[in-house]
Amino acid sequence: MASLRDIVTSASINLLSAFGFLMAFAILRIQPFNDRVYFPRWYKKGTRSSPTRSGAYASKFVNLDCRTYLNFLNWMPAALRMPEPELIDHAGLDSVAYIRIYLLGLKIFVPLAVLSFMVLVPVNWIGDTLERAKDLNFSNIDKLSISNVPDGSKGFWAHIVMSYVFSFWTFYVLYSEYKVLATMRADYLASETRRPDQFTVLVRNIPPDPDESVSEHIVYNANKLASLVSKKRDFQNWYIYYQNKFERTSKRPLTKTGFMGLWGTKVDAIDHYTSQIQKLNEEEAVERERVKKDPDAIVPAAFVSFKSRWAAAVCAQTQLCRNPTLWLTEWAPEPRDVYWDNFAIPYFELTIRRLIIAVALFFLIFFFMIPIAFVQSLANIEGIQKVFPFLKPLIRIESVKSVIQGFLPGIVLKIFLAVLPQILMTMSKIEGYPSISALDRKSAAKYHMFILVNIFLGSIITGSALQQLKTFIDLPPTEIPKTIGVYIPMKANFFITYIMVDGWAGVAAEILRLVPLVLFHLKNTFLVKTEQDRYEAMEPGSIDFPVGEPRIQLYILLGLVYAPITPFLLPFIIIFLAFAYVVFRNQVINVYDPKYESAAAFWPDVHKRVVIGLFISQLLLLGLLSTKKIGRNHFALLPLPVLTIWFFMYCKGRFESGFIRFPLQEAMVKDTLERATEPQFNLKAYLKDAYMHPVFKSSDVEKSDFTFEEEKSPLVATTRVATKLSPDVHSSSPVQSDA
Amino acid sequence: MASLRDIVTSASINLLSAFGFLMAFAILRIQPFNDRVYFPRWYKKGTRSSPTRSGAYASKFVNLDCRTYLNFLNWMPAALRMPEPELIDHAGLDSVAYIRIYLLGLKIFVPLAVLSFMVLVPVNWIGDTLERAKDLNFSNIDKLSISNVPDGSKGFWAHIVMSYVFSFWTFYVLYSEYKVLATMRADYLASETRRPDQFTVLVRNIPPDPDESVSEHIVYNANKLASLVSKKRDFQNWYIYYQNKFERTSKRPLTKTGFMGLWGTKVDAIDHYTSQIQKLNEEEAVERERVKKDPDAIVPAAFVSFKSRWAAAVCAQTQLCRNPTLWLTEWAPEPRDVYWDNFAIPYFELTIRRLIIAVALFFLIFFFMIPIAFVQSLANIEGIQKVFPFLKPLIRIESVKSVIQGFLPGIVLKIFLAVLPQILMTMSKIEGYPSISALDRKSAAKYHMFILVNIFLGSIITGSALQQLKTFIDLPPTEIPKTIGVYIPMKANFFITYIMVDGWAGVAAEILRLVPLVLFHLKNTFLVKTEQDRYEAMEPGSIDFPVGEPRIQLYILLGLVYAPITPFLLPFIIIFLAFAYVVFRNQVINVYDPKYESAAAFWPDVHKRVVIGLFISQLLLLGLLSTKKIGRNHFALLPLPVLTIWFFMYCKGRFESGFIRFPLQEAMVKDTLERATEPQFNLKAYLKDAYMHPVFKSSDVEKSDFTFEEEKSPLVATTRVATKLSPDVHSSSPVQSDA
Repeated sequence: MASLRDIVTSASINLLSAFGFLMAFAILRIQPFNDRVYFPRWYKKGTRSSPTRSGAYASKFVNLDCRTYLNFLNWMPAALRMPEPELIDHAGLDSVAYIRIYLLGLKIFVPLAVLSFMVLVPVNWIGDTLERAKDLNFSNIDKLSISNVPDGSKGFWAHIVMSYVFSFWTFYVLYSEYKVLATMRADYLASETRRPDQFTVLVRNIPPDPDESVSEHIVYNANKLASLVSKKRDFQNWYIYYQNKFERTSKRPLTKTGFMGLWGTKVDAIDHYTSQIQKLNEEEAVERERVKKDPDAIVPAAFVSFKSRWAAAVCAQTQLCRNPTLWLTEWAPEPRDVYWDNFAIPYFELTIRRLIIAVALFFLIFFFMIPIAFVQSLANIEGIQKVFPFLKPLIRIESVKSVIQGFLPGIVLKIFLAVLPQILMTMSKIEGYPSISALDRKSAAKYHMFILVNIFLGSIITGSALQQLKTFIDLPPTEIPKTIGVYIPMKANFFITYIMVDGWAGVAAEILRLVPLVLFHLKNTFLVKTEQDRYEAMEPGSIDFPVGEPRIQLYILLGLVYAPITPFLLPFIIIFLAFAYVVFRNQVINVYDPKYESAAAFWPDVHKRVVIGLFISQLLLLGLLSTKKIGRNHFALLPLPVLTIWFFMYCKGRFESGFIRFPLQEAMVKDTLERATEPQFNLKAYLKDAYMHPVFKSSDVEKSDFTFEEEKSPLVATTRVATKLSPDVHSSSPVQSDA
Repeated sequence: MASLRDIVTSASINLLSAFGFLMAFAILRIQPFNDRVYFPRWYKKGTRSSPTRSGAYASKFVNLDCRTYLNFLNWMPAALRMPEPELIDHAGLDSVAYIRIYLLGLKIFVPLAVLSFMVLVPVNWIGDTLERAKDLNFSNIDKLSISNVPDGSKGFWAHIVMSYVFSFWTFYVLYSEYKVLATMRADYLASETRRPDQFTVLVRNIPPDPDESVSEHIVYNANKLASLVSKKRDFQNWYIYYQNKFERTSKRPLTKTGFMGLWGTKVDAIDHYTSQIQKLNEEEAVERERVKKDPDAIVPAAFVSFKSRWAAAVCAQTQLCRNPTLWLTEWAPEPRDVYWDNFAIPYFELTIRRLIIAVALFFLIFFFMIPIAFVQSLANIEGIQKVFPFLKPLIRIESVKSVIQGFLPGIVLKIFLAVLPQILMTMSKIEGYPSISALDRKSAAKYHMFILVNIFLGSIITGSALQQLKTFIDLPPTEIPKTIGVYIPMKANFFITYIMVDGWAGVAAEILRLVPLVLFHLKNTFLVKTEQDRYEAMEPGSIDFPVGEPRIQLYILLGLVYAPITPFLLPFIIIFLAFAYVVFRNQVINVYDPKYESAAAFWPDVHKRVVIGLFISQLLLLGLLSTKKIGRNHFALLPLPVLTIWFFMYCKGRFESGFIRFPLQEAMVKDTLERATEPQFNLKAYLKDAYMHPVFKSSDVEKSDFTFEEEKSPLVATTRVATKLSPDVHSSSPVQSDA
């Protein structure tokens, strides 16, 4: 077991490496040629122009101003300076809510750490079990942990009482944070400027109507069209490149007609691409006509826009049809957030898909080691020799052999863990959610379960999830927390190291953006032809919610579990949370370009997972104390999990609907206000092209043939959208006047 | 263990006693003086007049027509003859849905029994385990059960395959029945004549409004008023009695002013009661004024009626206010169904109450034997001698002593079980549901859990629920189905006897209505003074859903569990279900007077509990087979529980909202139809007095001062109801035109 000195050494190494990352970041970020890597958000917003365009040649690329090197940490206060309302305005509520998760962790753990060190550490120190049991090799950290309190001691009452205090404090912080977020969301939705999704409802599972041609009002399936459009964009880019070249050199550039312009007959480049684009335009028009007429390309879903927010709110919240699986209505996700591939799934297939994915997720979590082990068994020396016999001489070299034997199995696992989020995202896509934000949330939920079983439990009870499953199946339910509980104190050192390696260093690596840095410079050197290319090469990225959030939850879980057991772990978590808070605030301000804005729709999930962590921590403490021979006193903890469930139900009823539904009161207030201030606003024109499949958006053909005009209808005709519902449903549409 | 002969003997006894009940019923029901006991439904409907009023004096009371005695079973075809649509019209959809539960059971078990006897019984018979194991005392029934198949036999594949067949058949029946019920409910709601609840929404948790006096628009808390009203009704009854007497005898009757007219000064009875009623009228008026002005008597809830069903449907389904725990809207229960005491509970208190009741229910189910045992320990000879020393000589008599010792402990348990439904109903009331139908449903859910743990599991693993709880906590999760599973085949005989005693005899007793019969004649002889009294003495009762439905579920559970294990049990269940179906059809037609009409709102619960039964049966078969040494073949059953969960989710999404929400399409169709056919209907007058606290209903004072007129409002002013919401909410009320 690691001693205090080991921990200090490890901490120093990790602190140093984190410090190294920070230094590198501090130097790299003030170099002008990295400006687009560390400040892409401002480019995307259009408020920052390239520093490489002005000034002396050298200072275009390298920062020669020495003074800026001195204050190399000044990005930190800068990151903290922007007030929250401005930050919401700058980066959206999603980003602000995300960095508030770190703040939530800090609010929970700082008081917990203070209390623990004031109350529990002295109690643990006084108990001298580990002093007496000299034969066991305990470290100094363990002397501060619950392991140092002798069996049957009255000192455990301190832990029981503190567990109540910790839980109630966590309840309080969670509750007030949920309340703040709910208010922020409501304010955000209320203060927002006009957005198409406020007026729009997504209608799915539209039954076929024998009286009407479906093609008049339904979303299209346009995959072939998409490939044509992307090809055209490519050609247009080349065209602009040669056009620029021609303008600069005043000499008509030539190109070859073969692959990548590398071989084939030489032709005039500008003429060539002009004719190519022309040809593609024609093909596209044909394909577009085909898509519009092909019944197989039509999907039984539609975006229906209303003339008022109020009408949309009513339509999204009510059941239209007697059969509750037809004419399903829900809030339309905002246009960027729409996931276009998932509109066609009927209800029965949807439930079957969810069943299959649930079973698959179970197997993925508990049996993922089986295929990994299989691949690892193939990826050994003999396997490689069989598949690639020509490598034999190389493998015979002793050093190469040892590298392969040492690293290959690990690399297979690493690769699996690296692609795991992608696998989970694919699974969520199969489940058929219609928006990217929902896909992100569902992937995060899956990843959270994976981490819980394979990282948290897997590290405590060493062994694969499969072995754990076997153990748990063979153990009585009361034994499970006991079995895990007794291991908990022994694993404190491991988790401290984990927090430093994965947490501290991971956050420092995040701010350095090493991969985007290298990629940008590679692209800039070899691929970028036009200014548009350079703009696209920035790849600012965005918050990786499906991976990031479950990881924070792991740290919060660790903190809650160890707070009453090994308080010494808490400072490490606090440092992680504080550091991550600053770093992500910087990233949100300067780097990330959000893919969508869901107005913090993920907060109920965050709240739920913290509550799950709290629940687990209470059960494990109960299990641990039940082995401490304190009679039946540990049952004093039994009300805590019950209270936690109650707290969860209470918050769910109190706040959750604010993240799903849109109250009519707010909608009506906004409608009235808008009608008073802008009575002449042309809503129809505004909404016309809002919801359009991306491939149609880039086309230049006239769009009016997709809309269906009906002046008296309360619905606003929008492109690619059902404007005329079948008559029976239309008559019950919510804006029907009733006076 | 009981042999086949024991079962036959027991069956004969039970058949005979059931037959005796039926004979008694057949004779008693055709006696005119019992007419009001066996046909009260027709009296309540006003289509049957008392046969005691006409004909010869003797035939007023006794049926002297011998021919009617011959066809003593002709009530059965009569009960089956009425077609379902007429039955819905006659008794309401609730009653029809309730007797369809028995039909559901028959649809499941008749094919299951046929298949079992064709496939499983031969397989069981061929296996000759029990023949060889002569030392164990097995009965013939067990030779037909799974116990007769030797360990490791391939014959178990028959049970595995049949378990799939049974499950899929049950899925099919459940699904189609849910579909039928959903359609019936939708049709019923659509075809129904105008009802106040179609236009009305119950609004709860109305926040206090500083600008407006609450008393103008809120439900009142009127308990003292209720007692005054009931006293007045009593006096009015006496008044009518003396009035009648005076008319008959032409002599002014006298009464005494003391208790029950038994002592005190003699006064003229009619004058006395006239003055008393006058006095109470004045008191009532004062109290009514007080209630209206007392802020403590006001409850933050209101029934809000709209001018159209469509507007009510929109209001009931949407969120009005930013805070989702305020201005809660839901469909108003129909006026008879309103439970007036539960409107005042704020959200926080509601969740606390539910938490407390959940914990209390847990203790009730698992620890109810502790107080019972305590009372039993008091209720022994010594205890009685201590408390009532004067009984000592009596107790010394040997026969009395043995009776006390033999019966007393049993009686304590019987009393507890008899009052248990009342306890559960009280618990549900504390949980704060606003309608009687919801209270019934929640009580049934609690009773179902009690039966499941204490009767089903309690009979299999003999021992108290507390001991079971201990066992289950100490067993691994996989061991629990195994442990229960192995006991299952041995308990078949016990459950067959249980079905006959509790099921067959219970149903026969239900139709005899012995208690109402005796009570009616007692009341008729001693208490009935006026025709109104006789009408009230009928007490037709109604379907006892909270007790009856969980009991059917127990039989369905037994059938599902034993179908693959001991098919011999199925015929007993089928006889029970068929018999109960006929009996309850008769009761619904001739006897019961429904307390309310919820349009089969309980069906999702029924469906859920059958699915739970199916799930349990699959787990138990899995556990049983895992002890049969068939390798890992029993894992072939593992997909079944997963499929069952999926089936449940699928049906929930497909049908449940039809039992909670009212589709806008239907509402709009009905509104339009009605406006076309009856354009001049005065809806306001119709809705005015619909939702009124019962104590106000009986009063004669003018009611117009409770309504608030606002001609332009889309809301219909109704008595004791908020007609003017506070302005901000009002502006977002769903009937606001949007053109």
